[in-house]
Amino acid sequence: MTRTIGVTEVALRDAHQSLIAIRMAMEDMVGACEDIDQAGYWSVECWGGATYDACIRYLNEDPWERLRTFRKLLPNSKLQMLLRGQNLLGYRHYEDMVVDKFVEKSAENGMDVFRVFDALNDPRNMAQAMAAVKRTGKHAQGTICYTISPLHTTEGYIKLAGQLLDMGAESIALKDMAALLQPQPAYDIVKGIKDTYGDVQINVHCHATTGVTMVSLMKAIEAGADVVDTAISSMSLGPGHNPTESLVAMLEGTEYTTNLDMARLEKIRDHFAAVRPKYAAFESATLVDTDIFSSQIPGGMLSNMESQLKQQGAGDRIREVMAEVPLVKADAGHPPLVTPSSQIVGTQAVFNVLMGKYKVMTGEFADLMLGYYGECIGERNPEVVEIARQQAKKDPITVRPADLLKPEWDTLVAEAGKLEGADGSDEDVLTYAMFPTVAPGFFKSRDNGPVNVGKTPEQIAKESEAKNTKGPKPVTGPISYKVSLGGREHRVTVERA
Amino acid sequence: MTRTIGVTEVALRDAHQSLIAIRMAMEDMVGACEDIDQAGYWSVECWGGATYDACIRYLNEDPWERLRTFRKLLPNSKLQMLLRGQNLLGYRHYEDMVVDKFVEKSAENGMDVFRVFDALNDPRNMAQAMAAVKRTGKHAQGTICYTISPLHTTEGYIKLAGQLLDMGAESIALKDMAALLQPQPAYDIVKGIKDTYGDVQINVHCHATTGVTMVSLMKAIEAGADVVDTAISSMSLGPGHNPTESLVAMLEGTEYTTNLDMARLEKIRDHFAAVRPKYAAFESATLVDTDIFSSQIPGGMLSNMESQLKQQGAGDRIREVMAEVPLVKADAGHPPLVTPSSQIVGTQAVFNVLMGKYKVMTGEFADLMLGYYGECIGERNPEVVEIARQQAKKDPITVRPADLLKPEWDTLVAEAGKLEGADGSDEDVLTYAMFPTVAPGFFKSRDNGPVNVGKTPEQIAKESEAKNTKGPKPVTGPISYKVSLGGREHRVTVERA
Repeated sequence: MTRTIGVTEVALRDAHQSLIAIRMAMEDMVGACEDIDQAGYWSVECWGGATYDACIRYLNEDPWERLRTFRKLLPNSKLQMLLRGQNLLGYRHYEDMVVDKFVEKSAENGMDVFRVFDALNDPRNMAQAMAAVKRTGKHAQGTICYTISPLHTTEGYIKLAGQLLDMGAESIALKDMAALLQPQPAYDIVKGIKDTYGDVQINVHCHATTGVTMVSLMKAIEAGADVVDTAISSMSLGPGHNPTESLVAMLEGTEYTTNLDMARLEKIRDHFAAVRPKYAAFESATLVDTDIFSSQIPGGMLSNMESQLKQQGAGDRIREVMAEVPLVKADAGHPPLVTPSSQIVGTQAVFNVLMGKYKVMTGEFADLMLGYYGECIGERNPEVVEIARQQAKKDPITVRPADLLKPEWDTLVAEAGKLEGADGSDEDVLTYAMFPTVAPGFFKSRDNGPVNVGKTPEQIAKESEAKNTKGPKPVTGPISYKVSLGGREHRVTVERA
Repeated sequence: MTRTIGVTEVALRDAHQSLIAIRMAMEDMVGACEDIDQAGYWSVECWGGATYDACIRYLNEDPWERLRTFRKLLPNSKLQMLLRGQNLLGYRHYEDMVVDKFVEKSAENGMDVFRVFDALNDPRNMAQAMAAVKRTGKHAQGTICYTISPLHTTEGYIKLAGQLLDMGAESIALKDMAALLQPQPAYDIVKGIKDTYGDVQINVHCHATTGVTMVSLMKAIEAGADVVDTAISSMSLGPGHNPTESLVAMLEGTEYTTNLDMARLEKIRDHFAAVRPKYAAFESATLVDTDIFSSQIPGGMLSNMESQLKQQGAGDRIREVMAEVPLVKADAGHPPLVTPSSQIVGTQAVFNVLMGKYKVMTGEFADLMLGYYGECIGERNPEVVEIARQQAKKDPITVRPADLLKPEWDTLVAEAGKLEGADGSDEDVLTYAMFPTVAPGFFKSRDNGPVNVGKTPEQIAKESEAKNTKGPKPVTGPISYKVSLGGREHRVTVERA
C-alpha cells in the first residue's frame, strides 16, 4: 500500500523571504505559475508572511493585486498563506473586526489555506482568525511553533494541537522556522498527535539551515504526516527549505510517494535558477549553521545582537550576551525565539549586558513581561514583572491582549480614506491598518506600477564596469593643450616624465 | 540500549577534493588537527584519492611528507585513505609488485585504514591491494561503488560484499560518490549485508549533492551501519558531504549516538570557516543538483561533455548526447559512472553524436569494451566489442588486466633514479610510477617547499584594488608643470577644458 504525501511548494513565498530578503518581483514568478499549477502540489504558499510588507515597502506592488494574479495563474491550486493570528501581517495586535475583515478579503481575493500561528503559541491569539477562516468556508490550519526549552515537551505540543483542533482547525501545522526540529521529536510529535486525536491532517514545515531537517521530514512522514513543505531546488537550502525534487527522490522505493510531476518540477527549477541570480545582492551568506543546537539562538537573532553591540562599540561582548539570552528567555517564561520575540529577548539581553541587569528595559520587553503579547508556556519571573510594571507604568494583564482593544475599523476607514491615492477599498484600509507609516507613500506611488529590484546579468555587468571607470580616464599618453602665456596662445604637448 | 555510530571525518581529503578542487595546503589543515584528533572520530580520511596528484601538480608538496605530518599531528586517530585498487592513485593498472610496494610504504608512513575500490566494481582489481593491506596488519576495507542501472540490484550489491569479505575485507564501504543512494536502497543494502554475512562492519560514504543522502545515512544507520562519513559543516554540502554536526543533531534522542565532542567540532568548524574563503577561486558553484535521478548522468560528467561539445561548436547538441549516454553505458555492460568510466563513456557518447555511432572510437572506450579495465556487471554488446577489436587492433581479454603486465618495479626504480631531485626512496619511485609526467618537475622544484594557492583576505583585497587602479591615477584637478619653451622655463598650470 503506497501512501501519497502532499507537498506545499514555498518558492513563491517563504523561499524568497528566507533566501533573498523577500525581494522577488511578481514578474519573476509568473513564468513558473503554469508548471506549479500542474505539478500536483497539495498547496502553493504564495502570500502572507512578510511578502505583504515587502510588496508595499520595496516593490511598489499592491499585495492584493499579487494575490488576485496568483488566483488567475494558479486556477487548479490551493493558494496558501501564513497569517500571524491576531497580528495579521503587521506588528501589533488588531481588534477583532480588523482580523475578520482581513480574512474575509483574503478569501474573497482567492486565498484557500490559512496557516494561522502565534509567536508565543498562545491559542487565544489565534482563535479569532481561525473562526474567521471557518466562516469563509476556507481551510483553517492551526499552527504549532516548534522550539526547544526546558519546558517544551512532546506532550505540551500534543496538548496544543488539541487546543487548535478544539478551535476548529482542519489541519495542524508543525512549524519549524529555526530548523531546530530533529528527527526523533518530529516523529514523536506527529505520532503523538495522530495517536491522541485520530487521523487529523498534519503539515510539517521545516527550514534547512541546520542540515538535518530533511531527515525530520522523513521521520514525520513515517509517523503519519500528511503534507510537507519544500522549495524547488533552485530556491532551496541555506536559511530556506529542503528541495522539492530531493523529497521526491527521498520517497522513491518506500511506501510513500508524492505523485509530483518531475518534468514540471524541472521546468520550475530552471525558471528560478535563471531568476535567482538577479537578486544576488540580497542573498544570505548562510549555507549551514548548526550553532543553534548548542546556543539555542537563531542565526538571524545572533547577527542582530552582534550589530547592536557593534553600534555601541561593544562588539567584543557577544559571548556575554549569548550567555544572557537563556536567562532573559527563562525570565520571560520561555517564549519561542521567533519574530517578534527573538528581537525583544535579544535586545533586552544586550541592554542587560551593557547597562546592568534590567536597569533599562525596552518597552517591548516590558509588554512581553506584562502579558501584552499573550501567555508563554512558562511562568514569568515575578521580580522582573514587577520591574516591568514600574518602568512601563502599566499593570500586568492575564486577558487576551486583543480584548483590551477598542473597535478601530471605522477609524481606520476614515484615516485611510484621507490618504492620497487610496482607493476606498477595504483592501486599502487593511494595508493602512497594518503598515500605517508605509501605506501613505505606497498609495501615492502605486500608479507608477511595480518596481523590480532584481538585476539582469547585463545590468550587473554594466554597473561593475561603470564602477571601475568612475571619474576621468587615467592619462596614459601625451596630451595636447592650448596654453595661453603672455597673451599668446601656444600649442603644447605634455607627457608625464 | 544506545548504539554508538562511528564517524569518519573527510574534511582533510574528500571534502576539499569535492569543494575546492583538492587545493587545500597542508599549512591550512595543521591548525585543526589537534581538535580532530581529540573529537572522537572513528577515523580521519586525510590522504589518497586525488590529493596525491594535487600535492605534486599544484602545491609543490611531497604527499609522503603530508602523510607523515598527519601521522604526527593525529597520534590518537586512525588515518584513512582512498585507494583505487590496482590503479593505486594513478590512472592505469600497475603490476602487482608496485601495488604491494605502495601499500607497504603507505602503512609504514602511518596509514591505518585502506578503503580499496574499483570503478567497475571488479573484485579482481581490488584483490592485490586488499591482500597487501592484510599483510601489513592494517585495516582493509572493501568497497562497493553504488550506482543505478537496470542491472544493479540490492542482491547484486550483497553478493559483491560477500566477494569482498572472501578477499579478507575487515569492513565493507558502501560508496556513493554521485549522491545517488536513496534512503530505501541504503536501508536494503546495509540490512541485506548484515542479514547475509552477520555483523560485518559497514561504513557508508555519501555525497550531499542531491539533497537527500542525509536521510540515506539515517536509514543506513537504522539498518545497522556502523560508521558514516561526514564533513565538518564549514567544509560540507554542495558536491561535498553531509555536515558532521548535523549528523550529531540527527541522532539526538534516538537509540543511536556518535559520542563526538561538540566543543571540538565547533573549533574544527571555525578553523575551516576561516580557511575556506581563501580558496574561493576554486569553489564549485553547485549547491544542489537533482538532475542525476532522471538523467543518470553525474554533474561533473555532464559539464565535461558540454565543454567537449562547445569546443566542437556543437553546444546545442547536449540533449542528443544525454540520450546517447545510457545507450553507450548499456553497450559497455553498465559500468558505474565514476572516474574514469564517466569520462570514457561520456566522450564516446559525444563522438557518437558528432561523428556517427562508433564511427570513431576512443582508445579508452575500446579498452573498456575489450576488458582492459576489468569486468562490468553486464555483458558487453558483441557488435561493439567487434568494432573495438578492429579499431584498436587488440583482442578482448577475460583475465584480470594486471595479469598481462610484466614486472615493472626495477624499471621504475631505474628511471626514477635518473631524475633530478629524486632522492632514491621507494616513495619517490612510487610518485614517478603514478605520475610519470608530473613527477620530474616536482622532484626538481621540491626543495622550494610547498606553495599555498589559497589567498588571504588581504591578498584578495589588494589584488582587487590593484586591478581597479592599474596604470596612472586619473587626473582630476589642475596640474602644474614646468614647461621649457623657446629656451625659457615657465611655470604653467593646466586643466582639462
